[in-house]
Amino acid sequence: LDQQQLKVEAAREALASVRSGMNLGLGSGTTANEFVKLLADEVKSGRLGFIRCTSTSARTEELATSLGIQVFSLAQVSPIDLAIDGADEIDKDLRLIKGRGGALLREKIVEQQAKRFIVIADETKLVDKLGAGVLPVEVTPFAMDVLMIRFQEMGLDPVLRLRDGRPRITDEHHTIIDIRIPEDLDIAEVVVSLREHAGVVETGFFPREATEAIIATSAGLKKMKR
Amino acid sequence: LDQQQLKVEAAREALASVRSGMNLGLGSGTTANEFVKLLADEVKSGRLGFIRCTSTSARTEELATSLGIQVFSLAQVSPIDLAIDGADEIDKDLRLIKGRGGALLREKIVEQQAKRFIVIADETKLVDKLGAGVLPVEVTPFAMDVLMIRFQEMGLDPVLRLRDGRPRITDEHHTIIDIRIPEDLDIAEVVVSLREHAGVVETGFFPREATEAIIATSAGLKKMKR
Repeated sequence: LDQQQLKVEAAREALASVRSGMNLGLGSGTTANEFVKLLADEVKSGRLGFIRCTSTSARTEELATSLGIQVFSLAQVSPIDLAIDGADEIDKDLRLIKGRGGALLREKIVEQQAKRFIVIADETKLVDKLGAGVLPVEVTPFAMDVLMIRFQEMGLDPVLRLRDGRPRITDEHHTIIDIRIPEDLDIAEVVVSLREHAGVVETGFFPREATEAIIATSAGLKKMKR
Repeated sequence: LDQQQLKVEAAREALASVRSGMNLGLGSGTTANEFVKLLADEVKSGRLGFIRCTSTSARTEELATSLGIQVFSLAQVSPIDLAIDGADEIDKDLRLIKGRGGALLREKIVEQQAKRFIVIADETKLVDKLGAGVLPVEVTPFAMDVLMIRFQEMGLDPVLRLRDGRPRITDEHHTIIDIRIPEDLDIAEVVVSLREHAGVVETGFFPREATEAIIATSAGLKKMKR
């Protein structure tokens, strides 16, 4: 199975946890998209009955709506019974890095409202130590320039996320600075220092939000639970 | 002296710390406005020489510009030699509550870039325990409704800040929820719990930003230093 097929496998397994009557939180990104597509098929077929969904990004809302899934506001479906979303990195303690797709703030807001949050991923997302790739940090535009300088001084190799040559603007009107976790530090320590700076709105570090994970590997499904 | 005159007295004393060549951060609110007016007079008279200013709000920028003070971006004047701003409450440890005017996020960003930050206030702002009035919490609009419910559950009596019947939008495109600090808790503990919630961008609690205070009382000036 290639990576794309593994994403579909993980999404399909997550679908088995969805019951009629549930309030669902829909994630963002390529793996979460596979879940949305499978969910739409279930709804259309009439097998699933009644569910109410909210979304973690404008993009997922578009996709869901285009497939016939009605999307409600967060307040309308909160508390959420089950959130399903992908991740960029997952460690053995079910801590995550998310946000390389840019939706980290809404994702964290929605997933903190969920009683269960299942992360779905292919095996490439499992890491020994979080920080194999970048950690996205969502910042308010007013602070962007001074935070770039500060993060550089902190040895975090900050890079401003761009789109078409201009700072990428998130759904919540912020910008994103991607940083590197220094090898000798744990991500949790770095996040504590980051958050001391006014203008840091949120980071892509999700230490406790996920309650379960479904990882599709070429040897079969691997499940984790907190 | 009435409260207005005391504000002017505190502002005038702060002006004595300004030197030619300095990079200044200009605060927001009625007391900070008095400082901006006195500063403009000094600049106009030629007594002060060259200074470079940045501002903590669109409103202060307008005032300063209208009085002939050029306002630069934060990055252009950072690091800041001296920031001058008011506060809503000040305790004996120089911890502050700010933000009842709605500019708390930019104020904290600017003041964290300042080597010195002098708080100016009249005597009514000195309190035994922070939380005599509300603590402003700046939140991202997507999370506003669920955070209102959560803060209610936490016993914080949240009230959404309105303007003309609609949520007040800050310079950074957020909304503000005013909460009450329960009598048996210290503000620092409450802020730690608040910040665990995604969507909380910043609070009006300034635990360590101020380095000095000038409080104008009817018995004369009172100064504090960290």
